[in-house]
Amino acid sequence: MISPSVSKQRDRVGREAAPVPGGWVDAARRLADRFGERFSVGAVVRERHGRDESHHQCRPPNGVVFPTSTAEVAEAVGICAQHRVPMIPFGAGTSLEGGVGALGGGLSIDLSGLDRVARISVEDMDATVEAGVTRKRLNEHLRDTGLFFPIDPGVDATLGGMAATRAGGTNAVRYGTMREAVLGLSVVLASGQVIRTGGRARKSAAGYDLTRLFVGSEGTLGIITEMTLRLHGIPQAVSVAVCPFASIAEAVNAVIAIIQCGIPVARLELLDGLAMAAVNRHSKLTLAETPTLFLEFHGSEAGVVEQAEAAAAIAQDFDGADFQWAVRPEERSRLWRARSQVYDAALALRPGAKGFSTDVCVPISALAQCIAETVVDLGTCQVPAPMIGHVGDGNFHLVFVVNPTDAAEMMEVQRLNRRLVRRALALGGSCTGEYGVGYGKLQFLTEEFGRPTYEVMRTIKQALDPLGLMNPGKVVALGAGRSPDPAEKD
Amino acid sequence: MISPSVSKQRDRVGREAAPVPGGWVDAARRLADRFGERFSVGAVVRERHGRDESHHQCRPPNGVVFPTSTAEVAEAVGICAQHRVPMIPFGAGTSLEGGVGALGGGLSIDLSGLDRVARISVEDMDATVEAGVTRKRLNEHLRDTGLFFPIDPGVDATLGGMAATRAGGTNAVRYGTMREAVLGLSVVLASGQVIRTGGRARKSAAGYDLTRLFVGSEGTLGIITEMTLRLHGIPQAVSVAVCPFASIAEAVNAVIAIIQCGIPVARLELLDGLAMAAVNRHSKLTLAETPTLFLEFHGSEAGVVEQAEAAAAIAQDFDGADFQWAVRPEERSRLWRARSQVYDAALALRPGAKGFSTDVCVPISALAQCIAETVVDLGTCQVPAPMIGHVGDGNFHLVFVVNPTDAAEMMEVQRLNRRLVRRALALGGSCTGEYGVGYGKLQFLTEEFGRPTYEVMRTIKQALDPLGLMNPGKVVALGAGRSPDPAEKD
Repeated sequence: MISPSVSKQRDRVGREAAPVPGGWVDAARRLADRFGERFSVGAVVRERHGRDESHHQCRPPNGVVFPTSTAEVAEAVGICAQHRVPMIPFGAGTSLEGGVGALGGGLSIDLSGLDRVARISVEDMDATVEAGVTRKRLNEHLRDTGLFFPIDPGVDATLGGMAATRAGGTNAVRYGTMREAVLGLSVVLASGQVIRTGGRARKSAAGYDLTRLFVGSEGTLGIITEMTLRLHGIPQAVSVAVCPFASIAEAVNAVIAIIQCGIPVARLELLDGLAMAAVNRHSKLTLAETPTLFLEFHGSEAGVVEQAEAAAAIAQDFDGADFQWAVRPEERSRLWRARSQVYDAALALRPGAKGFSTDVCVPISALAQCIAETVVDLGTCQVPAPMIGHVGDGNFHLVFVVNPTDAAEMMEVQRLNRRLVRRALALGGSCTGEYGVGYGKLQFLTEEFGRPTYEVMRTIKQALDPLGLMNPGKVVALGAGRSPDPAEKD
Repeated sequence: MISPSVSKQRDRVGREAAPVPGGWVDAARRLADRFGERFSVGAVVRERHGRDESHHQCRPPNGVVFPTSTAEVAEAVGICAQHRVPMIPFGAGTSLEGGVGALGGGLSIDLSGLDRVARISVEDMDATVEAGVTRKRLNEHLRDTGLFFPIDPGVDATLGGMAATRAGGTNAVRYGTMREAVLGLSVVLASGQVIRTGGRARKSAAGYDLTRLFVGSEGTLGIITEMTLRLHGIPQAVSVAVCPFASIAEAVNAVIAIIQCGIPVARLELLDGLAMAAVNRHSKLTLAETPTLFLEFHGSEAGVVEQAEAAAAIAQDFDGADFQWAVRPEERSRLWRARSQVYDAALALRPGAKGFSTDVCVPISALAQCIAETVVDLGTCQVPAPMIGHVGDGNFHLVFVVNPTDAAEMMEVQRLNRRLVRRALALGGSCTGEYGVGYGKLQFLTEEFGRPTYEVMRTIKQALDPLGLMNPGKVVALGAGRSPDPAEKD
């Protein structure tokens, strides 16, 4: 639970009243003493740490600290624990479900200064990095090793943030998500104590899988400060293909067939007609503005050709119009740059707008139905909502391009999102494929798993964070009055 | 903690005094009323449920119940919880670290009657099965679907037992372990409540990863009664190869190079000269009795040839003597049958003996060193100890073929095992790659992870099983006097 003595003061920077935890003044004094200029209560810094890349409102913390080591994070956590001040870890601020918002006030712990690549082992194909290292910087470090880190959520998130939210991305279909990528962690617990989970062995049956418990816990059980990550060999050959279809259903059925045939496709992305139009406009391309699959194949020279030919034959069975592949690096980059900029391209459909991105994931057999019903449901919705799908995983996003200050519009989009989530759950799916729960999806956890399962999550939260100070209000709600609201019905 | 009113009575069947929990008489009466003939206190039945396939002593329970559904398991658990009787889940009894032993007495819950394959989805490539289904039976069910379940620990274990111990096996190098294979679970908690974790979506960022928490928890947090499992397409082509080497070091270095080149080998096993001699004798073969790699490749017709040729070229670089591959099913079976019978072959080296199998796993870069130092350490050891390695994962076993009644011999083997585990830990490895902790490895958990991490495991155990009734004495030790013994030093 949040410290009982929270005073609601009008915050100078936030649009919301920012609560001030009772112990804040004492904690702030000690943080200033200990961290000097690396502790800030400046309005601009707080504002920047209270918002992510989504439509969620800015919820600024009372202050921000910039530690540069696990030991310093532990010190800051110890101070907060002593004074009952909530702690919110912050990486690159690229979350999409309000994960960084200081709902009950508190201290934002900015981990970007934990930026060391501690070790790389080419033989073991693993690396140990601090939480603030971004995925692109890790891949720059890996240049000349023959290895790469595959998880790619689009933005250049920190690896700590990606682990904390169990991030997926475009090549999860082949390489898995952060669940599979993380071998071990250093975590600062609510008490300030540091633990190490997992190890460097490729497999282990030793004890409870604390690594997987902290991956995806979004800072609510502890703060991840260091990770050992599994790397992969850069494939000998890569080829990229695009293939437009007459309908989403045919594109999705082609995807199912490709997966079932065991073609080890590395990326398998679907953009609908509107997303293609946005991409064309944003990236000055002239691709067909119909549902289109983007595919990437990794393997040996011969293997890539074999994969692409097999996929092309399947696409043709589903009337894929024109399966074209590109092996030359410049062609590949051009196509994937267009795909990777689709979120920005979507936002550009409506200048000044924000993205409200949905994130359901369903069993692949239910994907065509889920998308078809969703398209019908969008019906008269006036908000542009291009669709982007990591369809190889059954995961797709609608990027509603919203004006967050238009209450009626936001209510309508919220309503459509709730209906989408419930459709996915009814089909055996999940309310979030890769963004995490934050507070945006908290209401759906009981619907997805049932109350008893949610209570086990709460029991674990209570056991590891008895004072409820670790990123409170995210993933699970603690305290008697803090069970999730009965979700709004539509 | 075990019920305080435990009386130590001489058990008629066990070699050890079998403790009788205080509430046992009342619990037994209720279990007999509810389950009739499916509840047994017979000596033979108890004896069979107190032992696994290892050298660990028989520790029979006070009774055994044979439920046939999740609801019946929940009823049995509810009765035990009410009367403070420990509960020990039992699958096929194939564990190797004493996982089924009733250390504090109690009820063995035999899950073999939960034997339904509830559903198979070919489109989604998953299946939902009850805990008592064995891996071979699931694969028989999958015949004609084009799918298979790859995890193969050698014996025909139940899938529930495999999930509970996070089993690996010979093709973990390609398909992962039970950690990767399980999508969701039904679990009976210590209270008798049933929860469902995970789901059927291929990926999810929704809440704490309870699935991975229960996988590998060895019945100490709850009893797994049902699982949704990821399946794989049967590869178009399979080929098998064997390649003898002059030394273990060269064989291991070839393995490292094969993994690094990204050859997606499906199995990659090392047998030492003594293991090869045992296999020859047991399976009437005439293979070279030197360190030998067994490899299996899965893929397209062309892909399998490409993989095998690439591996052969690497083997030659390390003086692999004679890389021979077999694509015809009968040749393949002959070779793999020999490999899969190596445990029996080892036991046959000394009629009447039992296997005491070690199970360390190290980063692959440390594998050659770990094995070399171990070979030196075995030095004058008189107990036969063939070596079998899932070397693609850095995991290897010594099967000490012991006479468990020879105390001096057992002490010597225990000493060598402790030295091996500590060697692996010093090299960044794990005390168990795939067998689990049971009570055989409990003393090493603090050494592997450090005391604070172990305390987090205990905190979770305490939160989910406050009475300490779920398979007590395994994985973690509860209660003030029950922290793991300071491990014996050598």
